[in-house]
Amino acid sequence: MEKKQTAILLIHCPDKQGILAAVTDFINVNKGNIVYLDQHVDYVQNTFFMRVEWDLKDFIIPRDKIEEYFRTLYANKYDMVFTLNFSDVKPRMAIFVSKMSHCLFDILSRYLDGGLNVEIPMIVSNHADLQWIGEKFGIPFHVFPITKENKLEQEKKEMELLRNERVDFIVLARYMQIISEDMINEFPNNIINIHHSFLPAFIGAKPYHAAYERGVKIIGATSHYVTTELDAGPIIEQDVVRVTHKDTVKTFIHKGQDLEKIVLSRAVEKHIDRKVLAFKNRTVVFS
Amino acid sequence: MEKKQTAILLIHCPDKQGILAAVTDFINVNKGNIVYLDQHVDYVQNTFFMRVEWDLKDFIIPRDKIEEYFRTLYANKYDMVFTLNFSDVKPRMAIFVSKMSHCLFDILSRYLDGGLNVEIPMIVSNHADLQWIGEKFGIPFHVFPITKENKLEQEKKEMELLRNERVDFIVLARYMQIISEDMINEFPNNIINIHHSFLPAFIGAKPYHAAYERGVKIIGATSHYVTTELDAGPIIEQDVVRVTHKDTVKTFIHKGQDLEKIVLSRAVEKHIDRKVLAFKNRTVVFS
Amino acid sequence: MEKKQTAILLIHCPDKQGILAAVTDFINVNKGNIVYLDQHVDYVQNTFFMRVEWDLKDFIIPRDKIEEYFRTLYANKYDMVFTLNFSDVKPRMAIFVSKMSHCLFDILSRYLDGGLNVEIPMIVSNHADLQWIGEKFGIPFHVFPITKENKLEQEKKEMELLRNERVDFIVLARYMQIISEDMINEFPNNIINIHHSFLPAFIGAKPYHAAYERGVKIIGATSHYVTTELDAGPIIEQDVVRVTHKDTVKTFIHKGQDLEKIVLSRAVEKHIDRKVLAFKNRTVVFS
Amino acid sequence: MEKKQTAILLIHCPDKQGILAAVTDFINVNKGNIVYLDQHVDYVQNTFFMRVEWDLKDFIIPRDKIEEYFRTLYANKYDMVFTLNFSDVKPRMAIFVSKMSHCLFDILSRYLDGGLNVEIPMIVSNHADLQWIGEKFGIPFHVFPITKENKLEQEKKEMELLRNERVDFIVLARYMQIISEDMINEFPNNIINIHHSFLPAFIGAKPYHAAYERGVKIIGATSHYVTTELDAGPIIEQDVVRVTHKDTVKTFIHKGQDLEKIVLSRAVEKHIDRKVLAFKNRTVVFS
Repeated sequence: MEKKQTAILLIHCPDKQGILAAVTDFINVNKGNIVYLDQHVDYVQNTFFMRVEWDLKDFIIPRDKIEEYFRTLYANKYDMVFTLNFSDVKPRMAIFVSKMSHCLFDILSRYLDGGLNVEIPMIVSNHADLQWIGEKFGIPFHVFPITKENKLEQEKKEMELLRNERVDFIVLARYMQIISEDMINEFPNNIINIHHSFLPAFIGAKPYHAAYERGVKIIGATSHYVTTELDAGPIIEQDVVRVTHKDTVKTFIHKGQDLEKIVLSRAVEKHIDRKVLAFKNRTVVFS
Repeated sequence: MEKKQTAILLIHCPDKQGILAAVTDFINVNKGNIVYLDQHVDYVQNTFFMRVEWDLKDFIIPRDKIEEYFRTLYANKYDMVFTLNFSDVKPRMAIFVSKMSHCLFDILSRYLDGGLNVEIPMIVSNHADLQWIGEKFGIPFHVFPITKENKLEQEKKEMELLRNERVDFIVLARYMQIISEDMINEFPNNIINIHHSFLPAFIGAKPYHAAYERGVKIIGATSHYVTTELDAGPIIEQDVVRVTHKDTVKTFIHKGQDLEKIVLSRAVEKHIDRKVLAFKNRTVVFS
Repeated sequence: MEKKQTAILLIHCPDKQGILAAVTDFINVNKGNIVYLDQHVDYVQNTFFMRVEWDLKDFIIPRDKIEEYFRTLYANKYDMVFTLNFSDVKPRMAIFVSKMSHCLFDILSRYLDGGLNVEIPMIVSNHADLQWIGEKFGIPFHVFPITKENKLEQEKKEMELLRNERVDFIVLARYMQIISEDMINEFPNNIINIHHSFLPAFIGAKPYHAAYERGVKIIGATSHYVTTELDAGPIIEQDVVRVTHKDTVKTFIHKGQDLEKIVLSRAVEKHIDRKVLAFKNRTVVFS
Repeated sequence: MEKKQTAILLIHCPDKQGILAAVTDFINVNKGNIVYLDQHVDYVQNTFFMRVEWDLKDFIIPRDKIEEYFRTLYANKYDMVFTLNFSDVKPRMAIFVSKMSHCLFDILSRYLDGGLNVEIPMIVSNHADLQWIGEKFGIPFHVFPITKENKLEQEKKEMELLRNERVDFIVLARYMQIISEDMINEFPNNIINIHHSFLPAFIGAKPYHAAYERGVKIIGATSHYVTTELDAGPIIEQDVVRVTHKDTVKTFIHKGQDLEKIVLSRAVEKHIDRKVLAFKNRTVVFS
């Protein structure tokens, strides 16, 4: 089955009468066939959100002109913030890991299966432990050992590498380092982390140990965009699993790893499919 | 169907060889027929936990002597902390409420249905709003309006009332007051609260507002024993429900109320059935 | 806080370009302020679904003319099936019960709490067991004992009563009788049942016993509109809870009752709020 | 950390007084240090179930004599059915696949991570599609194309191979063939299947399509032991995920695959850890 070439528009703006009609009109009158449309109005913040996707086959505006036309004719008028993407342009994703392989494996298995519309030009790590996985799957694996002293310097090298490889976004697949402000600012809402707790509970290190100490009956995992405040960025996805008094820190970790990898992969898929819209530290996640 | 008269023993002690055999032996040789047995060994804390229930019909030790015999023959030897209860002695429960009725209704509907092996000699409130429910169901409803100034004084009166009515434990069914240390100390591990968040996230006031602000994708409710540290006592039960960007604080509250009442009622049932054992700020909850 | 008077339009029709714009335009140009809008396109069935709600305060079409205008100007053009309702007109709901009270209590507690925008002119039962609840809450309770012989005759009387009281929809709150075709046809997609299993598993009688026999690890409950095929109507809501080898039929029933009442009440709330749209044995449930 | 050598005893027998004491006594007096003990009494079937694991370091019975001693001294007396296994003897597992890789990848990623105490001498398939995965991970991959005509003949060859490689149990990781009675009888309660529905709903082919047609609001996956009746064997694990009217068959499949792989891997882990005990078409799954 040949896949359609589609354009995907993600929009948010102050809610006003007629926005939805205007956008669908723009697509319809120019002979675009809408294949996905979802919108959300946040009446508390008086903000309009929309994701629309249309088939480009008969669309009369050339694809390299769509952004300009849309901006001129509509976006400026409605004070829209928008992104335009095309389904046949794969975003480029870097995966950062440390020593644990479960999240990396889960992402790679989807990728190899053809399930992720993405390119993976590199895996980056502060340790060499998982290098064999990169080699097995033919993905360049770069090791940047990090100490207190060399941290900023190593991150500079990483950023250079990311720029050279035109990386669009970064997935922290249980990368056990705090990302510095410079890198965060270079990839706003484009660094996805998995935190192994139900945020905002158990921020920071060793959340399973803390959860065990607290005696919770449910543990969780949270994927979120990284911001400069630790574990406080916009949440994309969360999930939980029951534990009992029979569980130990060890079984918390074991049960938690299944959560972590699924929650992270779901977030990564949503991000790749342009279905996540971060706005004021919260996210709209289209279905 | 006539209900069996049973004895219920809840035990914890340092784990040693032969405890389980000793306890079951005590029951078996004295012609008690075990109808429930569950045990748990916490190998981290090296502690043994057990709940055993047996039919008293042919038991050769008179019921008013069981505690003494068990203590003398076994409990002292193994450094056990234990409680002995009888299924035909209903514990006496006070319900504390403020203005919201959903948790109160849920408990009362189970009670009226014959599903709770408990007596409810009173409902206590700092407001008169729900007095009509007490009247409708024929349960004495006592109003103790509370201000900063009269709080300790009012609690004293409440405690007197609780003592006079031989109340065994208290359920805070969305009672919007912090309980003072005196009352907590009089009812150790016998005050059950429902907190409308997934603890330890969102301790304190207005957790749904805080959860909305944080942009979580799942909300929760937690029932726990009240200790002197706010919302930090041993957790008995938790549950969660998904929310999306379409939810508002109002729908958080609405969805949350269904969680709150079920989570609280489950904890109350477990407590009444002597299935909860609090130990060092965690609980063992037998099935 | 005074509640707004709103109009609620539920629509489905073959998907065509411009429908959404047309409907929102109808409201906007006539000075209706939209307070809720959600739409869904089913690209498999090529069908458009929509729920829109707007404030009537400044709306220039008189409310008794809205239906006619909308039909003439839009609905006919787009082959729409639609219903128009007003938030200040409470639908009239009959509750059918047998001997179990948990679902009835749950609905009534929401109703008494002001949480259901509905009128309850009657409870109907084939047994007198729960009559006391009707009396306690001041709701007329009608007993129609049913035998094989008198079933159709009794249902005729029930239908007469339902007509006399202008009942809009019926909730079967664990009513242990199969509804006959005549009554189903008189209330198409307006009889809500709760089945105590995860449909389509365990259709028919004694689903908890069947689930226990099958050795499932999760049990469920399903609310659905009643159609002439047993337990096969459009599903509105489902939920599940975990069970283990420690559970028995008795604890299945106990855990299940909590599911049943919440799942049924959620479906009833959605129905009352005009958020359910049944289409070809499936439902669109707006958030 | 050096791993302990332990013995694991799985037992079931008619419930009688003193069994638990007898078994723990057997271990204790022979200087075995118990590291895990869980038991369950099914009072409906009057059957006792137990899993006990002990450190062999100081155990005075030689490990090759334990089975004989236990049988002679206890098992015969109590009519026990039991299995004895040692933690340092890895069971040998064959994985059967067809064309879908997600379950295979999930199992292999756990295996490579050191998380499965198992040996995988082979992957078997009726198609060559996933051969590259076997090659990548260095696991022999055997292709047995299956037609109506050659099915029994091919299965004979498979069984010969399984015998030659001393395979203990088989995992059907989305293997799209029905296993014949001969093979099932050779591996009683040792063939684990994943069915992509919440059994017993949607038995047989295309369960996601059937679930979509039925309009369910939750989909599930079930891992179970294979018996001669299709999809009717003892269930080991189930899990579910919510769907809405926005989902399609395609997204059912996508969401379902995440369920399938986790549910299957959990069942495989439990089986490897000797924590599953099948009894009369139900399972006891120890924690």
